[in-house]
Amino acid sequence: MQVSVIGASGYVGGDLLRLLLQHPKVQVGQATSESNAGKFVYAVHPNLRKLTALKFCSIQEIKPCDLLFVALPHGRFMHKFGPLTAMAPRLIDLSADFRLRESQDYVTWYGHEHADPEALRQFVYGVVELHREEIRQASYVSGAGCLATASLLGLMPLFRSGVVRNQEVFIEAKVGSSAAGNESSLSTHHPERSGAVRSFQPTGHRHTAEIIQELGFHGRPQVHFSATAVELVRGVLATAHLFLNQKLDEKDVWNIYRTTYAQEPFVRVVKERKGVYRYPEPKILAGSNFCDVGFEKDPHSDRVVVMAALDNLMKGAAGNGVQALNVMAGWDETTGLQFPGLHPI
Amino acid sequence: MQVSVIGASGYVGGDLLRLLLQHPKVQVGQATSESNAGKFVYAVHPNLRKLTALKFCSIQEIKPCDLLFVALPHGRFMHKFGPLTAMAPRLIDLSADFRLRESQDYVTWYGHEHADPEALRQFVYGVVELHREEIRQASYVSGAGCLATASLLGLMPLFRSGVVRNQEVFIEAKVGSSAAGNESSLSTHHPERSGAVRSFQPTGHRHTAEIIQELGFHGRPQVHFSATAVELVRGVLATAHLFLNQKLDEKDVWNIYRTTYAQEPFVRVVKERKGVYRYPEPKILAGSNFCDVGFEKDPHSDRVVVMAALDNLMKGAAGNGVQALNVMAGWDETTGLQFPGLHPI
Amino acid sequence: MQVSVIGASGYVGGDLLRLLLQHPKVQVGQATSESNAGKFVYAVHPNLRKLTALKFCSIQEIKPCDLLFVALPHGRFMHKFGPLTAMAPRLIDLSADFRLRESQDYVTWYGHEHADPEALRQFVYGVVELHREEIRQASYVSGAGCLATASLLGLMPLFRSGVVRNQEVFIEAKVGSSAAGNESSLSTHHPERSGAVRSFQPTGHRHTAEIIQELGFHGRPQVHFSATAVELVRGVLATAHLFLNQKLDEKDVWNIYRTTYAQEPFVRVVKERKGVYRYPEPKILAGSNFCDVGFEKDPHSDRVVVMAALDNLMKGAAGNGVQALNVMAGWDETTGLQFPGLHPI
Amino acid sequence: MQVSVIGASGYVGGDLLRLLLQHPKVQVGQATSESNAGKFVYAVHPNLRKLTALKFCSIQEIKPCDLLFVALPHGRFMHKFGPLTAMAPRLIDLSADFRLRESQDYVTWYGHEHADPEALRQFVYGVVELHREEIRQASYVSGAGCLATASLLGLMPLFRSGVVRNQEVFIEAKVGSSAAGNESSLSTHHPERSGAVRSFQPTGHRHTAEIIQELGFHGRPQVHFSATAVELVRGVLATAHLFLNQKLDEKDVWNIYRTTYAQEPFVRVVKERKGVYRYPEPKILAGSNFCDVGFEKDPHSDRVVVMAALDNLMKGAAGNGVQALNVMAGWDETTGLQFPGLHPI
Repeated sequence: MQVSVIGASGYVGGDLLRLLLQHPKVQVGQATSESNAGKFVYAVHPNLRKLTALKFCSIQEIKPCDLLFVALPHGRFMHKFGPLTAMAPRLIDLSADFRLRESQDYVTWYGHEHADPEALRQFVYGVVELHREEIRQASYVSGAGCLATASLLGLMPLFRSGVVRNQEVFIEAKVGSSAAGNESSLSTHHPERSGAVRSFQPTGHRHTAEIIQELGFHGRPQVHFSATAVELVRGVLATAHLFLNQKLDEKDVWNIYRTTYAQEPFVRVVKERKGVYRYPEPKILAGSNFCDVGFEKDPHSDRVVVMAALDNLMKGAAGNGVQALNVMAGWDETTGLQFPGLHPI
Repeated sequence: MQVSVIGASGYVGGDLLRLLLQHPKVQVGQATSESNAGKFVYAVHPNLRKLTALKFCSIQEIKPCDLLFVALPHGRFMHKFGPLTAMAPRLIDLSADFRLRESQDYVTWYGHEHADPEALRQFVYGVVELHREEIRQASYVSGAGCLATASLLGLMPLFRSGVVRNQEVFIEAKVGSSAAGNESSLSTHHPERSGAVRSFQPTGHRHTAEIIQELGFHGRPQVHFSATAVELVRGVLATAHLFLNQKLDEKDVWNIYRTTYAQEPFVRVVKERKGVYRYPEPKILAGSNFCDVGFEKDPHSDRVVVMAALDNLMKGAAGNGVQALNVMAGWDETTGLQFPGLHPI
Repeated sequence: MQVSVIGASGYVGGDLLRLLLQHPKVQVGQATSESNAGKFVYAVHPNLRKLTALKFCSIQEIKPCDLLFVALPHGRFMHKFGPLTAMAPRLIDLSADFRLRESQDYVTWYGHEHADPEALRQFVYGVVELHREEIRQASYVSGAGCLATASLLGLMPLFRSGVVRNQEVFIEAKVGSSAAGNESSLSTHHPERSGAVRSFQPTGHRHTAEIIQELGFHGRPQVHFSATAVELVRGVLATAHLFLNQKLDEKDVWNIYRTTYAQEPFVRVVKERKGVYRYPEPKILAGSNFCDVGFEKDPHSDRVVVMAALDNLMKGAAGNGVQALNVMAGWDETTGLQFPGLHPI
Repeated sequence: MQVSVIGASGYVGGDLLRLLLQHPKVQVGQATSESNAGKFVYAVHPNLRKLTALKFCSIQEIKPCDLLFVALPHGRFMHKFGPLTAMAPRLIDLSADFRLRESQDYVTWYGHEHADPEALRQFVYGVVELHREEIRQASYVSGAGCLATASLLGLMPLFRSGVVRNQEVFIEAKVGSSAAGNESSLSTHHPERSGAVRSFQPTGHRHTAEIIQELGFHGRPQVHFSATAVELVRGVLATAHLFLNQKLDEKDVWNIYRTTYAQEPFVRVVKERKGVYRYPEPKILAGSNFCDVGFEKDPHSDRVVVMAALDNLMKGAAGNGVQALNVMAGWDETTGLQFPGLHPI
């Protein structure tokens, strides 16, 4: 399958190229970058030295292919969707532009009108564990926010089972620096960002919209979200608090998770009695496509604390996109995604 | 004033020595450490090289002094309180042994009976901003947990004002590695701990007991606490979610904080519209005795997210102890505590 | 090919298991660990969760196989070599026990006699780029020190070409924390090790012996080595200074490197005029088997500064071992070693 | 004494303000910043919140004072020296503009002519340990490069004693990110800079010129310098190799260091047989004005490895400047500089 990548010079685009270049069923056609057109891909992504002699081209030069990945900054692709559909029958967008089903949500959470509201319903929300069958049939698949993906995979089993009191949850998401992209600024300047534990979005985080949208199994969820940047390049840990609406012990909750995820190749339920890695930990997921999910029931109350960890550039972006590609193409879902992560790292 | 330190080889003891050695009103008498007795203090605390020729002695050799600081590991001092009172008329304990007023709370949260329950009521809970007048009169002052101190200073203004719905709060505390002390183990081994975002205590954290105890202005609070270790040596950030029980806008909440803390030398209300450090950030507090406090009101709901940051060894332990000492002695509260922290760091 | 691993619970053993479990031509037989016998491998190496149900066994239970990897702490295998040869016709040792050809060197650099000096000459020094043909024929292959491997791959082209004045070189090696293994101690305790730039071996480093042994193309080299621990988990950067004994410009030196390494799958010559990654950088090599090599000629003198970077657990240990295995087995040298490293990380 | 700071918004300017605001003998007059004129100083330096209500002004508004500190980016002050002398009888420049005595050295090492070569000889090179008496008398004092200061304090005792073979030394300097200033770029963007071990200047580093200039006790030294950026915000470790030209054992070398530095308040000779901090380590110097110096003699040769560590913003810049101020003013040299650094950090 011939696959090209629009917007390949960012961090998500780079990880996508890395995965696609080593994917046994894929041939990478083109990789676009307006500011780097003509340069070798490895000049921007130095880990790809000796792997490829591909050069970036302009989006103007894009040619027809079997599937297009789009990894443009948010807000760009919504203006190009129509024309680009002429280039490929199938398309996976990793930006936020087609994640939300309701165009009004873009006004509420992103602060602007959506440029192509009609197209929104042509996209399937691209978390395979939530929409595998629709993705299998889809022409157009959206990406998902990295914090949203962790939160959703952590919370979906409980929300779908209907055991969450008032459909209400408090989420504190911790995230590494690569999630903010490759544009430097004072806030990402190493002396300022190193060692940070920084409340960059205590309220109003855009990923809240996706979480609300996708957890509505039993009515509209109440999602109270905050996001904190921590010292880490790759990685997300979402910590969520909710109350059970019925008496369940730890084992009951465990069964809900096990039932939900037993067959999932990229979700591991992590909950150990001892050891260093008793709960999900993003540290050991760098480069892997796993989302690790765990929980602890508060012995003093009906509270359950849910934890979910992933690599924001992998299961939170590029890896998740390749997983969706595998599903769309009918290949083994783990093709090209077997790297398990490093320990120690 | 002649001051000695029991348990001076740990991280809290070391920071205490650093502060006391440079305190203009204090003379350091003795510093005990059983495992290091006879060694120079700077052999264990290398930052004190050239500052002092003091050697550690055994607790058996302790002599009378004006005030004793105790920085033993939790669970030790409760067995020694009686005898040690003979050594000094005043005493500040930085362990958890005399923080809780109800001996039953030690059973519930620490898992063991208290060895000296009668003595509990002789201690004042040592957060100056909460108990300044009692500390001024006190003979015996306890320390406070680092996560509890951050949580309490962040939340006290709202709880005391009676604006918190159901007296309920969700706290996610992030903490650096020094808070776990100087005993090495696999979980603190650098390859395992570096870059961690680790849920070490999703429920059941002991500091919860202090927070419940100290926020009961309008009935028993419901405190839902979790703690996550992050990549940082010194520092705590507590992020708390609560709902207002009345219509208040950002400015109203701001006024509550300003009123509460306007005269406090070590609490800064941090809430900026722009810049890198808009909210409390532990990174720039290393070595300082400040607790920075901020908040954001959710425009989508009545939720307020409160953030509080401090250096766990300073305002979270040793610095807070010296502040209490200053109050007890009637000195300017900031004596010996003026170091403002570094930027960048 | 059936392969077992002796000493599989350490960091090198863990990375070896990760590589072998995903190696398309290898079946992992047994993995030994005395302290973890009976436990699941993933209990110690959490990145292997969901990849394997293998359990550790004791070395007493080891069964015959096609090739044995040995990853015991230094000084152990030299006492077991004889008996273990009965278990497999081929063996790759990743400890230091059989790296040096002269038993006297163990006395000089390791401070003890070698337990099996006769066996030393049965081993080939296991850096494929130096001894490919001998390794192809070998039954027994040793590992190589991580700092030695970086130094050797950086310096070999110049030493072999005979352009190094007095065969003399000054090497300053920077190394991450995982190189010291998985035993915790105060020096590896996170609050002490985090942010360190620590001269742990200014002189007398054991890897010096290997470098002297392997660079003797034109007489005994004079190697002045020092080693500094830096904040990093995986990674080595060796920075070496030497003088040319003849007039060569940058392009001449470049040609020596290009000629030497043009066909090497795991050595990249990295020397760019601009960009962030102009020279070898261990950061982007975590998990990869590349050794990146670069240099700069001092315009003020005949000095050349050579830089070489690698991941100490991969090209510096386990990855290099699998590369040797591939050579011994006649497989494509890159089999199971294609992971290129992450950017950013 | 009334002191103003030109160029107060950078990292050096910020640390200078911090020190001067708490200096008991100094009153801070003005602090200039063209891009921040009119803003509160604490808006740029958040650690100064609650310490000062000072606002930045433009250099155009500068008024006469007793002493001017200049902390402009390199290359600016040389164009302003004449006019600014009218503003204060004494002046300390922390840039590189007046460090070198020979204007030709600016061409060789900085790549441009010096704008005011006549003025060069009016400045004293501002390392107090090298030029205390001249600084006491001086009107104009230059700063010193952070890597140069570490190298010089580490090497001066041996060069001055005449025991260095061929006056030749190899220096590998490791440095944190704050040394490059507060301008963000891709190379300082956190995902790229975090965990770096980056050879940013293998040859040709500008500080080489200062080291050559200041070590010429017995003829022109041969200084072979390279610089590597490591994961650290504040801190420098210079590791230097040289050979002795006579038989000296460790104790002889120790005596040279002790004799040189016994009376120096800010140099500590650090060389321990055991413990974590056996040698100089920048980690524990953050915020302190110490330069720690140590060495190890190679038992295999006449080589001595010298190590010197400091905080690049303190003893490597602002702290060193305040030390010079204290000398110029006849105050105790340690006034305002007593912060000893933190452990752990």
